[in-house]
Amino acid sequence: MTVRAAVAGASGYAGGELLRLLLAHPEVEIGALTANSNAGQRLGALQPHLLPLAGRVLQETTADVLTGHDVVFLALPHGQSAAVAEQLGPDVLVVDMGADFRLRDAADWERFYGSPHAGTWPYGLPELPGARAALEGSKRVAVPGCYPTAVSLALFPAYTAGLAEAEAVIVAASGTSGAGKAPKPHLLGSEVMGSMTPYGVGGGHRHTPEMIQNLSAAAGEPVSVSFTPTLAPMPRGILATCSAKARPGVTAESVRAAYEKAFADEPFVHLLPEGQWPATASVTGSNAVQVQVAHDPAAGRVIAVSAIDNLTKGTAGGAVQSMNIALGLDETTGLPTTGVAP
Amino acid sequence: MTVRAAVAGASGYAGGELLRLLLAHPEVEIGALTANSNAGQRLGALQPHLLPLAGRVLQETTADVLTGHDVVFLALPHGQSAAVAEQLGPDVLVVDMGADFRLRDAADWERFYGSPHAGTWPYGLPELPGARAALEGSKRVAVPGCYPTAVSLALFPAYTAGLAEAEAVIVAASGTSGAGKAPKPHLLGSEVMGSMTPYGVGGGHRHTPEMIQNLSAAAGEPVSVSFTPTLAPMPRGILATCSAKARPGVTAESVRAAYEKAFADEPFVHLLPEGQWPATASVTGSNAVQVQVAHDPAAGRVIAVSAIDNLTKGTAGGAVQSMNIALGLDETTGLPTTGVAP
Amino acid sequence: MTVRAAVAGASGYAGGELLRLLLAHPEVEIGALTANSNAGQRLGALQPHLLPLAGRVLQETTADVLTGHDVVFLALPHGQSAAVAEQLGPDVLVVDMGADFRLRDAADWERFYGSPHAGTWPYGLPELPGARAALEGSKRVAVPGCYPTAVSLALFPAYTAGLAEAEAVIVAASGTSGAGKAPKPHLLGSEVMGSMTPYGVGGGHRHTPEMIQNLSAAAGEPVSVSFTPTLAPMPRGILATCSAKARPGVTAESVRAAYEKAFADEPFVHLLPEGQWPATASVTGSNAVQVQVAHDPAAGRVIAVSAIDNLTKGTAGGAVQSMNIALGLDETTGLPTTGVAP
Amino acid sequence: MTVRAAVAGASGYAGGELLRLLLAHPEVEIGALTANSNAGQRLGALQPHLLPLAGRVLQETTADVLTGHDVVFLALPHGQSAAVAEQLGPDVLVVDMGADFRLRDAADWERFYGSPHAGTWPYGLPELPGARAALEGSKRVAVPGCYPTAVSLALFPAYTAGLAEAEAVIVAASGTSGAGKAPKPHLLGSEVMGSMTPYGVGGGHRHTPEMIQNLSAAAGEPVSVSFTPTLAPMPRGILATCSAKARPGVTAESVRAAYEKAFADEPFVHLLPEGQWPATASVTGSNAVQVQVAHDPAAGRVIAVSAIDNLTKGTAGGAVQSMNIALGLDETTGLPTTGVAP
Repeated sequence: MTVRAAVAGASGYAGGELLRLLLAHPEVEIGALTANSNAGQRLGALQPHLLPLAGRVLQETTADVLTGHDVVFLALPHGQSAAVAEQLGPDVLVVDMGADFRLRDAADWERFYGSPHAGTWPYGLPELPGARAALEGSKRVAVPGCYPTAVSLALFPAYTAGLAEAEAVIVAASGTSGAGKAPKPHLLGSEVMGSMTPYGVGGGHRHTPEMIQNLSAAAGEPVSVSFTPTLAPMPRGILATCSAKARPGVTAESVRAAYEKAFADEPFVHLLPEGQWPATASVTGSNAVQVQVAHDPAAGRVIAVSAIDNLTKGTAGGAVQSMNIALGLDETTGLPTTGVAP
Repeated sequence: MTVRAAVAGASGYAGGELLRLLLAHPEVEIGALTANSNAGQRLGALQPHLLPLAGRVLQETTADVLTGHDVVFLALPHGQSAAVAEQLGPDVLVVDMGADFRLRDAADWERFYGSPHAGTWPYGLPELPGARAALEGSKRVAVPGCYPTAVSLALFPAYTAGLAEAEAVIVAASGTSGAGKAPKPHLLGSEVMGSMTPYGVGGGHRHTPEMIQNLSAAAGEPVSVSFTPTLAPMPRGILATCSAKARPGVTAESVRAAYEKAFADEPFVHLLPEGQWPATASVTGSNAVQVQVAHDPAAGRVIAVSAIDNLTKGTAGGAVQSMNIALGLDETTGLPTTGVAP
Repeated sequence: MTVRAAVAGASGYAGGELLRLLLAHPEVEIGALTANSNAGQRLGALQPHLLPLAGRVLQETTADVLTGHDVVFLALPHGQSAAVAEQLGPDVLVVDMGADFRLRDAADWERFYGSPHAGTWPYGLPELPGARAALEGSKRVAVPGCYPTAVSLALFPAYTAGLAEAEAVIVAASGTSGAGKAPKPHLLGSEVMGSMTPYGVGGGHRHTPEMIQNLSAAAGEPVSVSFTPTLAPMPRGILATCSAKARPGVTAESVRAAYEKAFADEPFVHLLPEGQWPATASVTGSNAVQVQVAHDPAAGRVIAVSAIDNLTKGTAGGAVQSMNIALGLDETTGLPTTGVAP
Repeated sequence: MTVRAAVAGASGYAGGELLRLLLAHPEVEIGALTANSNAGQRLGALQPHLLPLAGRVLQETTADVLTGHDVVFLALPHGQSAAVAEQLGPDVLVVDMGADFRLRDAADWERFYGSPHAGTWPYGLPELPGARAALEGSKRVAVPGCYPTAVSLALFPAYTAGLAEAEAVIVAASGTSGAGKAPKPHLLGSEVMGSMTPYGVGGGHRHTPEMIQNLSAAAGEPVSVSFTPTLAPMPRGILATCSAKARPGVTAESVRAAYEKAFADEPFVHLLPEGQWPATASVTGSNAVQVQVAHDPAAGRVIAVSAIDNLTKGTAGGAVQSMNIALGLDETTGLPTTGVAP
């Protein structure tokens, strides 16, 4: 099979990571590459690490340019995907790496994004219960947010197994690429190196309703989420430290068993041996997820920690994994499973 | 007043930071500098940033060498301070930067440190209720741990004001200097740059009982603590993200008011203007603390975040601040209040 | 003596570092703080590490605002200092931290900066032969560039002692704060962390003529300079690796002797013991300079390496040092000599 | 073809990177993995990023264990390869990633390494004139050092084209993984983050004779090398800034033409478009090399800069590239050509 793929938004970090993965994908041929303000520029000037594509010139993001591909990846600012997707026809696989089609609740969307809700597409986190089936053969995929990917994978087994109370407390550290490539003073290297700082504290981060949606589905009841993201001095990676009160009777053994069962057949999620904890460097550039879980009897909590690469499993790798499933390819095709470490 | 000060353990990170501060302290004259395995070496080879002391040679840590000073700072491995302190006599101010005399509960000490409890000294976190009075005129000071400093300052106002339930959830990121200067593979630059990883998860970190002690005292009832420390890719700094369920009736205004009251007269603790959050870079090299607090009504939690420099306010700055109080000097003497940023 | 100081350009990195130093200067009282586009904002929002000044509001940069101070520091974009300085009168000490008055050769200025030359002021690198005398009592000071500071201090002793041929080859690594605070894509943390890259290669960097000026003066003949700056993944610091062919008869001993003589009485420049090499971390936040020199007989070259903090000795510290001299204060007043390390 | 490969020294950085590449190599099956002090441990505990090999247990490095493979990679401390290689027989491809067989001059070896010279094997830098032919079908390969790889690729075209005088001046910045995984105080994250420092200054670095060997061969006359390595605050990457006096008549055009010709058919070396300079992040984790060159007429020098990943093209990628050639595989098989950036 040769899959012809177009990428709308090829000059940003998500688009760049996607192209890095697609270059190594044996079934994909890279077609049109588009951008907004960067249209007309050589990709080599904007993504100097994508050496095999250095000579490619970015086109305008129009339906004409994107038409004629088997897959179109949208790495656009939120709110722009629906208009593009509509023009591409129902037979083209459209993989939206933005937020537009992730939420099921229109009110949630409107409260956090301030614009009309575009709809809901099959959700590209195949490891969640039922998600894989919804992706198979689908022509539309909503790629999850990076934080929800890390947090949902860390906590859903505790909820599906009924081990945890419905109040999750999450503190996550993200590399700076999660904040995008648009230059802002607080993202300057001078500012971020040597510093950690929180943002969107107190429920304000747009990824919160997506986490609530995933964890509530796993729990079968509404789960509240206290989410504090922090910006860490590294380019990539998310470390999500997640906890919830343990239900009565929970033990270290029951927690371990639930997680072993949840991830037993997952090709990308690695429940680490007891005593070893996730590190973001171990998954840099890979689609792998490291998870570890513990029971703290003194504090009465279940603590689960996950590490992902926000750009790979958290964005572009998740997109390719979902594409593979949607197209009937082996789910792991073209996706790196080893981190670039040290 | 000229205070003659000796430093036992001058070759490590805590000792080095202490010397940096003492060099700038207008009332202190630096006396004997001792070490264990590094005795006999030039300080300039071990602490190349302490240029004015480059030619000083480290001595053995013995009572003879340490005798004859007004203040002796102990930056020794835990369990070694008591034996040294006993030989120094009751009239010398002994400031222990290790853990030996922090805990009031001997059983806690023995469970976490595995050796007999040496005792309890006045606790060098002057901002805690009642702490300042206990330090005035004291000849013995136990300097708090770095994490307990950050966490206690972030959360005690919520507990003294009765705003929070007695179950605290804390995730803190620390710079690598908190792990000391003894070379270990996981602390290599190659390993830590670009990576975040937790450790001591599930209640195992030795600073946990110290936090429980401080927060329980503030709350007037036992507070449980779920503490997850993480290692961040930066040399210095602690960002502590702390939360607890809000008690009924708590509002954003009542939270803000409690914190404003708690820190109104504190020279080093800065409650930031609403909307601005702490950043570790802002306090690098300084004794300042940045605190911010929020109420998340959806999750029903109070979230407090603090940033300190683990080596300054978290160790050596706290030691000097306590020394100032114990000696009757102005509490702020010789202590930097601006961070070295960017 | 109380010196009342104004700072024009207080929102940038140079201005922020200057304020950090002035806050600790025992003879200085901080007066007006001005900015351009940031006028009207609280300093705390722009320089969150300057906690004691957090409530100060930035004013417009006008002669009215700056009038009435003993010293006015100008941290303005190049080309703007002359117009401001003219309005301040001949009795006010004006310390220009920009490039406008550094070069003696108007043609050099015009070639590298593309505007008319404003003039030449006494040069604020007191360690250069003759520089200190020109600064004493002067009402105008041109603070050197950060790279020329590092490079000139590393190499001038080789030239004054006639040890080196008149062709210098310099490769310097700078922290990102040297590139300023205006957000540009290539200065994002995501881009700079984990990366080193050169810029201005082949003679294009504006600091080149300033180096040529200083080294030629030391040599008594025109010295050519091949200068390659590189951007390093750290917020602060310059490491300058400088070399030139050794003249016949040069030995390790003659090189060492020349450097010992050049820096024997300098309060800020530390010629390290043989075998120890400069590290930028050792001088972070300090006005200290570390220098080491070697003779490579196989390659026939003298190699000198210096480390400075680009914002301190390389900009704001050099400015304060020069102010001290100009005002007749002790040259070291208020200037830190220990680095904030690790 | 299925190539069965053993790796001696699988617990270090070079061995780990090699395994990362071999896992993605379509023709290689990974056989025995050995170590010295780490024998008996799970690879997952030592190389947590190599998730697909996490359960493999390291064996002792003995001839018995290594026998029975088509290729044996040696990632051993210098001086240990000869003894192992002798026992493996002449029909096994032995790829030595250490220094033992790189130098042609026994006296050079003995001066820099202090032990008897083991011999000289075909040199695994295929881009050098004549190197590829020597590797084809060879059963022994000496993989170049990381610095000589970066430096030789940057400068050899200037020498083969007769553009440069025979005195090269090189300053290179390396990520910390180049210093290996053995824990030493100066390699701690606390020490290296935020700092740059030189080492081995003045001709002392062991890679110097290897550079001299390569550049002299290109020039057809002895080339002297002034080499200053510096340690940069990043895990991976080498940026080599190399220059030499331009011969009379050299122009920007003649320099550009020589480099275009040298790299026209090279699959891994990218001469960047004029005005774009190498960045180490652009080649992280890849076997790609970025090169740029300029002529500085004022200083009279040719300046060439290269960026490589020290662990990939500089060690393990070079090893796989050479293996491919030696075995008659396509030279690029299994080797990534895009960097993991940002």
